[in-house]
Amino acid sequence: MNLRLDALTIVEETIGFVLPDVAVRKKLEELELSNVVLVAIGKAAWRMAKAAKETLKENIKKGIVITKYGHSEGEIENLEIYEAGHPIPDENTIKATERALEIVEGLSEKDTVLFLVSGGGSALFEKPKGTVTLQQLQNITDQLLRSGANIEEINAVRKHLSEVKGGRFAQKVQPARVVCLILSDVLSNRLDVIASGPAHPDASSCEDALRILERYNIKVDENVLEELKEETPKQLSNVESYIIADVKLACEKAVEVARRLGYSATILTSSLDCEAREAGFFIGAIAREIVLHERPLKKPCAIVLGGETVVRVKGKGKGGRNQELALAAAIKIAGLENVVVCSVGTDGTDGPTDAAGGIVDGRTVQRIKDAGFDPAELLEDNNSYQALKIAGDLLITGPTGTNVNDLILILAR
Amino acid sequence: MNLRLDALTIVEETIGFVLPDVAVRKKLEELELSNVVLVAIGKAAWRMAKAAKETLKENIKKGIVITKYGHSEGEIENLEIYEAGHPIPDENTIKATERALEIVEGLSEKDTVLFLVSGGGSALFEKPKGTVTLQQLQNITDQLLRSGANIEEINAVRKHLSEVKGGRFAQKVQPARVVCLILSDVLSNRLDVIASGPAHPDASSCEDALRILERYNIKVDENVLEELKEETPKQLSNVESYIIADVKLACEKAVEVARRLGYSATILTSSLDCEAREAGFFIGAIAREIVLHERPLKKPCAIVLGGETVVRVKGKGKGGRNQELALAAAIKIAGLENVVVCSVGTDGTDGPTDAAGGIVDGRTVQRIKDAGFDPAELLEDNNSYQALKIAGDLLITGPTGTNVNDLILILAR
Repeated sequence: MNLRLDALTIVEETIGFVLPDVAVRKKLEELELSNVVLVAIGKAAWRMAKAAKETLKENIKKGIVITKYGHSEGEIENLEIYEAGHPIPDENTIKATERALEIVEGLSEKDTVLFLVSGGGSALFEKPKGTVTLQQLQNITDQLLRSGANIEEINAVRKHLSEVKGGRFAQKVQPARVVCLILSDVLSNRLDVIASGPAHPDASSCEDALRILERYNIKVDENVLEELKEETPKQLSNVESYIIADVKLACEKAVEVARRLGYSATILTSSLDCEAREAGFFIGAIAREIVLHERPLKKPCAIVLGGETVVRVKGKGKGGRNQELALAAAIKIAGLENVVVCSVGTDGTDGPTDAAGGIVDGRTVQRIKDAGFDPAELLEDNNSYQALKIAGDLLITGPTGTNVNDLILILAR
Repeated sequence: MNLRLDALTIVEETIGFVLPDVAVRKKLEELELSNVVLVAIGKAAWRMAKAAKETLKENIKKGIVITKYGHSEGEIENLEIYEAGHPIPDENTIKATERALEIVEGLSEKDTVLFLVSGGGSALFEKPKGTVTLQQLQNITDQLLRSGANIEEINAVRKHLSEVKGGRFAQKVQPARVVCLILSDVLSNRLDVIASGPAHPDASSCEDALRILERYNIKVDENVLEELKEETPKQLSNVESYIIADVKLACEKAVEVARRLGYSATILTSSLDCEAREAGFFIGAIAREIVLHERPLKKPCAIVLGGETVVRVKGKGKGGRNQELALAAAIKIAGLENVVVCSVGTDGTDGPTDAAGGIVDGRTVQRIKDAGFDPAELLEDNNSYQALKIAGDLLITGPTGTNVNDLILILAR
């Protein structure tokens, strides 16, 4: 057992399992769809659409792909490809969304809209409702953000001012069936939250939206108030939704691979979302317990965690949440033998760096000190990239084409 | 199974197990000592000495108790009782320590010094070396602190300037045997760190001490430099040390009680020391995983953690690390059924409050909201005491007389 190699194997196989094309292919082979109109939105839309086309072939009659600028990889037969603004929607977003609505117009109950959703879908799939302009929508969002409204409140308002969000897309598609395949980067996997739920019933009401505008004292034009009178769908009988890849599935795959490699393994949580550095200290404390007392698992063992932490930026250094977590863990496990901690973004990028994360062991701190640097000082300066680079502990994968949040491993033998 | 009641039972039995008198009695019944001279230092010194006297009776010939002001509970036969300054040593500290050295003078190898150590021992047991004055010692410590020296560096200097620290107490007691019973509130349980190791060989050298003074450019008087020339003991053959209670033992007891109550149970870590709020979020994420996916343990289950977190004070509210951790966890488990998180200081006090910690469940957040307050806002203001008070979720035990850090439980069924 080589802990570092085994960690890399687990990371590689896990990411391979949650690639958009792999996940789409696997699900479509189960579903056997025909008479399909494809609508793919999000940063992984192109790859998901490509895989769907390769799997369903002539069963896809027509369709549209809406992805972020630079994320299209070329033509796909029978499909129209659009690129648009992200994270802020632009005129191309609206043009592409209008085109999507045209394409699904006049379908019958024999038709299926295959709706492929990935991260970024909320910005990439939007058409303001009726007389509302994109500028009015942005303005209201900005005001709400400045007033301290939370994301739930902002979404309640936005869903009621959109032609596609809050279940309205699926409503327009009726009586055709909607099969929704989701590559989720939202930890809660709440279907009404992912991409603002174009194919999911909306839990918020017109009244809620008006109350929120009032609470934060947001001024809106007459036409906006008028549009806010129409309710979003509260029930949708034509939709089936499947999460085809998310951090939970990634964690389960990681456990499977770890067990195959001979480790007893368990998932500790798949919804970690605290501060990166403190998570690293916490994970380091768990790693210590394993090494010193073989708890909570006997060695050789693997503890798997999933989620997405945040970095509290105080210093001027370079790094990312996974690197910061790894460096903090390294400080806690300094001097211990036969243990590694690895933290990696499944999208292959971590902060403004070329690394996906870090992989550290009990000698990481010594390697940094030997090079004349103080690991605690580098961490304090949010300079995890330099620290791990010095130690030879960066994990570099390049962009992977998927994003199901982050994977964290403790391996001990 | 009533989760809240069971959590309280686990807390109560665990604290009962690590009370100074209980732990001392249990260990002394194993050891069968005679010809004993007792030296007890620290905040729990009186209770430990009392228990020792009750157990060993006439086998204790004489002895001394040095504890913090207000911590003596009366006379103990054959023992001299001193109270002194804590956390800053004062003239009474020195007087008492001098008396302790007199009492152990001239012992033979048939004698045993029973050395009872608890938290606060470093301040309560001190006599500056030779010509060094208490003021010089304080001054050097202050300068080192201000210069950014770490606690390891400060201790290396202080041990060399003390008559009792860094193993010198045990050295002076030779040829008598020293049996050292320790109630530890130091997470690492490093014997050279607890109370600055009066009965433990010192890993630092005179040279280290001089180099540290130089590194931080600390000016010291001639007499101090002279005293720094004598080396602390690097080996002590007359000492046996036992950790009779610490957070690890507390965690093990908690697991035992949880199992007896019908829960599968494990220790996740016994060295948690990250930020309290982030630890709460992390623990909440673990609790979610248990409730939603029965991982890492199947329900009914208990996860036990030990350690001592820190609060990052930003707001003006009132609270303590255990209450802050509990409130943060409550936010993460809001809406979940059949789960509680409990965090408690084993000393029965948590920050500047009358509570020992908090016990929260999936409805804590709703209870706070129902009273017209925002749990996230109260947390942001470090106002965990008010939040938990509103929710009826404070855990109040009163001072327990022991301190082996904090105990945290997740219980789910």
